[in-house]
Amino acid sequence: MNNEFIVTPWEVTGEIDYDLLIERFGTKRIDNEMLERLSKYGDLHPMLRRGITYSHRDLDWILDKYDAGEKFVLYTGRGPSGNTHIGHLVTWMFTKYLQDVFGAKLYFQMTDDEKFLFNDNLTLEDTRRNAYENALDVIALGFDPAKTKIFLDTEYIRTLYPIALKVAKKVTFSTARAVFGFDNSNNIGSIFYTSIQAAPAFLESELQGRNVPCLIPCGIDQDAHFRIARDAAPLLGYYKPALIHNKMFPSLMGGNKMSSSQPETTIFTTDNAQAIKKKIGNAFTGGAVSATEQRKHGGKPDVCSVFKYEYFLFEPDDKKLNHLYDACKRGEILCGECKKRLTERVVKFLESHQKKREQAREKLEAFILRDR
Amino acid sequence: MNNEFIVTPWEVTGEIDYDLLIERFGTKRIDNEMLERLSKYGDLHPMLRRGITYSHRDLDWILDKYDAGEKFVLYTGRGPSGNTHIGHLVTWMFTKYLQDVFGAKLYFQMTDDEKFLFNDNLTLEDTRRNAYENALDVIALGFDPAKTKIFLDTEYIRTLYPIALKVAKKVTFSTARAVFGFDNSNNIGSIFYTSIQAAPAFLESELQGRNVPCLIPCGIDQDAHFRIARDAAPLLGYYKPALIHNKMFPSLMGGNKMSSSQPETTIFTTDNAQAIKKKIGNAFTGGAVSATEQRKHGGKPDVCSVFKYEYFLFEPDDKKLNHLYDACKRGEILCGECKKRLTERVVKFLESHQKKREQAREKLEAFILRDR
Repeated sequence: MNNEFIVTPWEVTGEIDYDLLIERFGTKRIDNEMLERLSKYGDLHPMLRRGITYSHRDLDWILDKYDAGEKFVLYTGRGPSGNTHIGHLVTWMFTKYLQDVFGAKLYFQMTDDEKFLFNDNLTLEDTRRNAYENALDVIALGFDPAKTKIFLDTEYIRTLYPIALKVAKKVTFSTARAVFGFDNSNNIGSIFYTSIQAAPAFLESELQGRNVPCLIPCGIDQDAHFRIARDAAPLLGYYKPALIHNKMFPSLMGGNKMSSSQPETTIFTTDNAQAIKKKIGNAFTGGAVSATEQRKHGGKPDVCSVFKYEYFLFEPDDKKLNHLYDACKRGEILCGECKKRLTERVVKFLESHQKKREQAREKLEAFILRDR
Repeated sequence: MNNEFIVTPWEVTGEIDYDLLIERFGTKRIDNEMLERLSKYGDLHPMLRRGITYSHRDLDWILDKYDAGEKFVLYTGRGPSGNTHIGHLVTWMFTKYLQDVFGAKLYFQMTDDEKFLFNDNLTLEDTRRNAYENALDVIALGFDPAKTKIFLDTEYIRTLYPIALKVAKKVTFSTARAVFGFDNSNNIGSIFYTSIQAAPAFLESELQGRNVPCLIPCGIDQDAHFRIARDAAPLLGYYKPALIHNKMFPSLMGGNKMSSSQPETTIFTTDNAQAIKKKIGNAFTGGAVSATEQRKHGGKPDVCSVFKYEYFLFEPDDKKLNHLYDACKRGEILCGECKKRLTERVVKFLESHQKKREQAREKLEAFILRDR
């Protein structure tokens, strides 16, 4: 068992053992029983079927509430450190699925303050600009404008701040240090920040003046923030937010997590066909040292980043995906073919996305929430 | 020499040695040379003449700037933990003197967030209500409405927050702990808070888009916040704020600092004549055990809280004050007389203040600054 990996909101390193994370964080696995329950609300999303969305907190509770007629709001977000990449889209697409299935309102937080505080090289102007660019990607996915509100922390702070203060008053430095691994060298803004990420979980309750359940779809790396939010909730008279976690979208280099800080191994939503082709061309695969060798012994789709792309997003048909897996294993298909097919799919997907992304500029103001 | 006293923004205990504070904090004494310089701008305020306003940082620098035609803004504030008492008025009256003499714009911060974060018994609703009540006392003192802006942190946070973030990014937990004495049990809001108190020092520079000098008149107990603000300033391209410190307004029990948390020893601006009479009647004085004894050996005005009240505010005439001092020393005047005279003066002062305070309700909105 590998204990060397690290998963926090600001650091994901090592080979992640996702089963161990469930233990470490104390979350619950989305088991077959839960999948069966979820399938009653609508067709299971591929990410659920494939165990990419694999862990939760209080999902059963929030479904009980829903069944009893108490609707929940969704809350997710983005740290606008740079351009959007495909890994971000995956979580947001799953969020849209939840919006569609449950008819849920969505609050989408752009943490321009966080990315400023945690990144020496970014100014607030940078993170704000990124936030607006990232918002185009969110809108392009087709969220319901009547039910979706996107806000930048610095533009919605007058609403968020009092909620954040209430949370902050209940969280000691000791707790923050234990949860996030802070030390004396962390800046005082970064120490406070988790209160701002907690606030939207209670936003609808504050705005409505009554408790409204909140479900947070997010990467499992964000869980730490919401452990804190959940601990504070009952002290403030709020419902604990429920969570539904997905695994990290893999890097083209075979690593755990696609990262904006490694642009060569990351496909951004604004990349053109040439860039996509080059990046996928250089991707880490499970291929053998030679074509002959591979035809003879087969490839290793389990470690192949190209296969992972199909698995996470580009091949939603389980049968076809299994066929691809088997064909690779048997040496019937070589890496070049897989890369070519994935490149075509990504190019097609992003060309369509980029069109909608440009159209989103017109719609932007309808989605943006600012302090009145 | 007494080293046992503590002076921080949240704790003032022990017998304060104000000379030692200058050493500890590394500030400069307002010496005769400085007093002479200040007297050229306008008659010296009694608090300057009497050494109540006694310490500074960069006051010479900001006067040089002023002499060279670069006007400064004033910034002071109030932690709205409860009603205003006379001790608060004293600093604000001195601030008004500075506004009058230098024609300076004033930013007045109501730290409703701070008092919420640092006081278990206060809600945000409490501290906001207090802030508006306290603002009436500020306005009643006659500040120029064209040059004076009062804001609550939670209502002006969208403007303050980006400045606070910039400060926070430059302050480590290590520094905050060293300056304020924080430990692991402090809540994460209180650790961040100093950034919010720093922000108004740079507000005019942000709003004007160019550096504007800022002078902060405050109790010496607030110096810690501005040591942090001053350290951060050059890293952010701002001028360091200059400071002018006054001593704490004494308690009626003879202690160092009048405190709202001890209502029996504190005269609030809303107290009626009866309450004032009772509080001053119970005040700690420098009297002897009997009238006979006192007529023979004299009283001790140096430790007498009634005399300190005259000294801080109610007897602006130095000659008369000296006469009172000598008369007490010589046993020519007894505590009862002094209490009676002070009671009359305080009642008269507060009756007039209370009228202006009620009239201030009409003017309130002209002074309040909120996010646009």
